[in-house]
Amino acid sequence: MRINGRPYRTIWTGKNRHDVEIIDQTALPHRFETAVLDDVEDAARAIEVMLVRGAPLIGGTAAYGMALAMLADPSDAGVEEAYQRLMCTRPTAVNLRWGLERMRRVLLAEPASSRADRAYAEAAAICDEDVGLCEQIGRHGLALIEEAARRKGGGRVDMLTHCNAGWLATIDRGTATAPIYAAREQGIDVHVWVDETRPRNQGASLTAFELLHEEVPHTIIADNVGGHLMQHGKVDLCIVGTDRTTRKGDVANKIGTYLKALAAHDNGVPFYVALPSTTIDWRIADGVKEIEIEERGAAELTHVTGRDAQGQIHTVQITNPGSPGGNWAFDVTPAKYVTGLITERGVSDASEEGLRKLFPEESELAR
Amino acid sequence: MRINGRPYRTIWTGKNRHDVEIIDQTALPHRFETAVLDDVEDAARAIEVMLVRGAPLIGGTAAYGMALAMLADPSDAGVEEAYQRLMCTRPTAVNLRWGLERMRRVLLAEPASSRADRAYAEAAAICDEDVGLCEQIGRHGLALIEEAARRKGGGRVDMLTHCNAGWLATIDRGTATAPIYAAREQGIDVHVWVDETRPRNQGASLTAFELLHEEVPHTIIADNVGGHLMQHGKVDLCIVGTDRTTRKGDVANKIGTYLKALAAHDNGVPFYVALPSTTIDWRIADGVKEIEIEERGAAELTHVTGRDAQGQIHTVQITNPGSPGGNWAFDVTPAKYVTGLITERGVSDASEEGLRKLFPEESELAR
Repeated sequence: MRINGRPYRTIWTGKNRHDVEIIDQTALPHRFETAVLDDVEDAARAIEVMLVRGAPLIGGTAAYGMALAMLADPSDAGVEEAYQRLMCTRPTAVNLRWGLERMRRVLLAEPASSRADRAYAEAAAICDEDVGLCEQIGRHGLALIEEAARRKGGGRVDMLTHCNAGWLATIDRGTATAPIYAAREQGIDVHVWVDETRPRNQGASLTAFELLHEEVPHTIIADNVGGHLMQHGKVDLCIVGTDRTTRKGDVANKIGTYLKALAAHDNGVPFYVALPSTTIDWRIADGVKEIEIEERGAAELTHVTGRDAQGQIHTVQITNPGSPGGNWAFDVTPAKYVTGLITERGVSDASEEGLRKLFPEESELAR
Repeated sequence: MRINGRPYRTIWTGKNRHDVEIIDQTALPHRFETAVLDDVEDAARAIEVMLVRGAPLIGGTAAYGMALAMLADPSDAGVEEAYQRLMCTRPTAVNLRWGLERMRRVLLAEPASSRADRAYAEAAAICDEDVGLCEQIGRHGLALIEEAARRKGGGRVDMLTHCNAGWLATIDRGTATAPIYAAREQGIDVHVWVDETRPRNQGASLTAFELLHEEVPHTIIADNVGGHLMQHGKVDLCIVGTDRTTRKGDVANKIGTYLKALAAHDNGVPFYVALPSTTIDWRIADGVKEIEIEERGAAELTHVTGRDAQGQIHTVQITNPGSPGGNWAFDVTPAKYVTGLITERGVSDASEEGLRKLFPEESELAR
């Protein structure tokens, strides 16, 4: 998608085909900067400190991390070490495991001498496939927005999204945003309420950044506001992303998603989750009981970084000094509050039956 | 309550009995500063720019604003002008209207020559009465915390509160916090999850400040977190305040309260609202339809003020430059999601029947 009118993906190989380049998402929205990943440690750190984030992009970055590792040490031990290093970077995203397991399987089947080449090709394939998935999600989600537009007699469709499941969280197009971009391309009048998404503000910084550069009308709101807007008929449709969906359709997504789903349910607003099937974890059923929720450092909550009127960047404490903070990064929305799952194969009920119907082969494998 | 070990109220008259002093709450939690209000315009501005906030304290400040006005012009026109100026400072708080109407009634019944003295006496009475109300609310709310402690077999009671309905929002003790302070005085082990309360962060700055200075264990969390904690049994009891409660028990409170009430309902967590009966608006029934919700400037959302590592205060933009923001200050929690109302006369169902039983004389007046 576009930044300052120029098309980008979130990860690409440089002129030297071994360099891997990314957008430093911690610098957004105040500065647009790219970074070069030189080795597997760079890739692991980029995931850990969230230079890159979003389940699909984490998967893509981990895949390229394996490729960088193969340049340095293409032995079986090298594959295993890189796999282990990258696996422990973030606990929640199922794409991380999925991407790394695919890379390990492919690489161990390859002679060491050609592992580096094969790894780059496989990482590129993973990324291209993700773009294809997002395009399909966009196509299926578009039908829901068209339906909302018809319900409103062609008037503006007000959508709400939480966090950033936009193209910056994927390789391109995004998951939750793919239908929005598709609708805009169809000339549908769309406006997006963008949840700020404390404590890391991915909505206010990343989603708003994306939508502004793609010229999609939007309004940033505090995470507290969505319920009020829904009570007053100001939200026609919610679409969020997910880091991990159980086979029964429970959805782990950025902390606070559950609260918006409750409000949507209470006000009869459709609440959809957009996801590539790679984020379905067929091994687990009950998301609240079985998904480990990452706890991150309190500094993400107590301190924020922003730009003053003179353009200077400052990191400031905004909470009472001396008071401790708690920082859970995700929550789980039970399937009963999810109207449907927008996947690359179509829209499914948030249920085991619905998911099995769309993905019979994957659900069989998981039995 | 205590700040640095010394007892304070939120508003008081200075040595010169005409000066009115307040705590400048916009400087908290980074600096503790007091401000002198010299005239009615100072008082109005203090309410508008939120040097003081919280329904009861707004009422008390408006009352003292009338007193300051009487020093300058004790004529009938002076009473009316001051009333009008103060009435338009904030639209939502019913205490503002209540306090100003009481002051106007009392003052117009008094000869102009003695209006200033009478105004100071009446303002002081309003403040003292509020302290009494908060003490009663604390006593009735304490019983709920004792009950939660018994349910847990004497273990730690984890409470959750939103925004600041603490002593800084009242004259002393607070509404939602009065039961907490009462429980602490009874030796009950209480811990408070403090919602940050975006966009103005009253929880992270004011409630956390209060609790720290009163040595009550607490943890600041993003507004997005409460639902997750409730899903995992980490919240035993919610108590919030209110700016206005309808006669049917719908509760207008800081934006985001509704979302926490939905989560409490979904997880079987008791959700109580603490209020002096002065915040009941007997004239209205349906809060969602009838309560006008204040929209404030987007800068409260897009910019934050905090302290850097060197102790310098900076105001920085944290949202994507160029993206608009929307800032609704309150929402309405329908009575069906409120377990009970903790008033100065006891705990009532959030219903017209419940409120009429506790306040028969007021509900009759409103017919």
